[in-house]
Amino acid sequence: MDNSDFGLENDLFLRACLRLPTPRTPVWMMRQAGRYLPEYRAVREQAGDFLTLCKTPELAAEVTVQPVEILGVDAAILFSDILVIPEAMGQKLWFEQGEGPRLAPPVRSMADVEGLAQPDPARDLGYVLDTIRLVLARLDGRVPLIGFSGAPWTLATYMVEGGSSRDFRTIKRVLYEEPETLHALLARLADAVADYLNAQIAAGAHAVQIFDSWAGALAAEDLEDFSLAYIRRVVERLTRTREGAPVPVIVFAKGAMVHLEKIAVTGCDVVGLDWTISLAEARRRIGARTALQGNLDPAALYASPARIRELVARTLASFGKGHGHVFNLGHGITPDVPPEHARAMIEAVKELSPAYHAD
Amino acid sequence: MDNSDFGLENDLFLRACLRLPTPRTPVWMMRQAGRYLPEYRAVREQAGDFLTLCKTPELAAEVTVQPVEILGVDAAILFSDILVIPEAMGQKLWFEQGEGPRLAPPVRSMADVEGLAQPDPARDLGYVLDTIRLVLARLDGRVPLIGFSGAPWTLATYMVEGGSSRDFRTIKRVLYEEPETLHALLARLADAVADYLNAQIAAGAHAVQIFDSWAGALAAEDLEDFSLAYIRRVVERLTRTREGAPVPVIVFAKGAMVHLEKIAVTGCDVVGLDWTISLAEARRRIGARTALQGNLDPAALYASPARIRELVARTLASFGKGHGHVFNLGHGITPDVPPEHARAMIEAVKELSPAYHAD
Repeated sequence: MDNSDFGLENDLFLRACLRLPTPRTPVWMMRQAGRYLPEYRAVREQAGDFLTLCKTPELAAEVTVQPVEILGVDAAILFSDILVIPEAMGQKLWFEQGEGPRLAPPVRSMADVEGLAQPDPARDLGYVLDTIRLVLARLDGRVPLIGFSGAPWTLATYMVEGGSSRDFRTIKRVLYEEPETLHALLARLADAVADYLNAQIAAGAHAVQIFDSWAGALAAEDLEDFSLAYIRRVVERLTRTREGAPVPVIVFAKGAMVHLEKIAVTGCDVVGLDWTISLAEARRRIGARTALQGNLDPAALYASPARIRELVARTLASFGKGHGHVFNLGHGITPDVPPEHARAMIEAVKELSPAYHAD
Repeated sequence: MDNSDFGLENDLFLRACLRLPTPRTPVWMMRQAGRYLPEYRAVREQAGDFLTLCKTPELAAEVTVQPVEILGVDAAILFSDILVIPEAMGQKLWFEQGEGPRLAPPVRSMADVEGLAQPDPARDLGYVLDTIRLVLARLDGRVPLIGFSGAPWTLATYMVEGGSSRDFRTIKRVLYEEPETLHALLARLADAVADYLNAQIAAGAHAVQIFDSWAGALAAEDLEDFSLAYIRRVVERLTRTREGAPVPVIVFAKGAMVHLEKIAVTGCDVVGLDWTISLAEARRRIGARTALQGNLDPAALYASPARIRELVARTLASFGKGHGHVFNLGHGITPDVPPEHARAMIEAVKELSPAYHAD
């Protein structure tokens, strides 16, 4: 597999995902197409609102490619929102100023679950697939494109709560009182997510990431049954090749780093790390099984470029010598970070990481 | 030490903290004196506002004792707020409706740190010590009283940010850019917290808990230097006996369960667990070193009493046979929980736990 040909100018990200040798560590950032970039804000203003931006392939493709051109990251990630799946399943989706996403009506009973549509990605999420095709044309083989989806559990939290939640009161009531209802919802979501990611891969995504942003809300005893089992179900159904080349799968279960070994056996190629565990410890625990992605503290980007460089050095040293590390933040980049700080991080990775890949 | 005499009718909590044999598992709840109780809301209304309630010993003592009498918990915990320390150090403290606590002016430079007062608990926090004395009189030896404080790191986040924070932007900038300023603040806080807890112990608290509610906001590499080192400094300075009996120390570093072994060597008697790690795993990892406190998912209390009983059974089974388990939630009880659900949890612990303590 060491002679994988992805047909790209820069395939460092894909090779690192597969733990193949690379001359340096690749780097990208979760939420790299986002509000911290003035160029993004200009396109968003043009779109009018966030959801229109997601659904206008020309504009979504433009912001997807921006960080590649402005910052020099080693991969693009599709600009979209995880909640397009609940919308495609029949919930109304909107964003309220300062309140975050809203979904209505909430899904809270078995009848609600049975009333959900099973999305056909080509029909219901065609704008995402169009965006992917436009992005690929614009990237023109420079770097790979990462597709993504929310994980079933995380999507279910929004669908049941009707939006964001602080204490997950309603979904936890369903989980503990009517687990069969939640399992029915999660099963439908697993199929919808698998179909959606397969459509992204068929449209040309080179890799996919599954975001379980609220994994940490689950009790330790419930993580396997209500989160990881459905991630595994998604991963098992994925098309893992594209034009003969492997399509790596990344699983990021935020807040669940205690359970790293369990995340590593979901079938993924790469485990995403949040900032609460060192790369060194993660590598000791699961580095023989998967590649690792992460995990600079996103708040480190509020420090000066000189200090950011030192913190990049610390992060690279934590993983240490060898292959299979994709540099990233431990969570999405925040809106107030100056773009030159993000650039300082990316440049530091490029300058300092070759030492860890020398023979 | 097996014949420790605490002079209490019910010393199960203290004995479990010290891993001494008990006939059943003791139980209390973080935030047990709180809004979910109508009796609490009545007293709070009488006080007018939250801070007045904290500072009126008669009323604070009343709500401290309520859960002992209403729910039958095995320990009372002082009703107060962690931010009375920043206030005693010179910041103005107030609570804005729906916005949480505010502290002004924020502490952000070495000059700000040097301008802070070093509190004299008897003079500046006398109302807390008066509350403790009133509580002890009201409890009349029925159950022990737990004192508490925020940990230096958690207090520092509020002091630097000027209140609650989502991304800890300012304190992280100080941490990464001017670590010496943050260390100076944390050192002052460690001394203030130790003095405060020692005053609580001198006033009669039978045990103390240190809450590091925002430990999980720290990068793995920073946890030791900016959180645990200062908790250790507090614990080392504590008076660990009261009238000849040991005074157990509990450390609850929420969101940092990956680092359990490091928390266990802060010098504490008990490690508090949030809901993200099973008691079984925690016991395997550190149960030979400390007692464990926790960790039912607080959202489990939204389930029915019958289901709560099953979840209590699961939690007890996770710790398994033996001593050294203090039953609690994995975080504070939430305001919307029906009191009868809390009671169902407490009664289930009392009924189901003796089987785990039989010879």
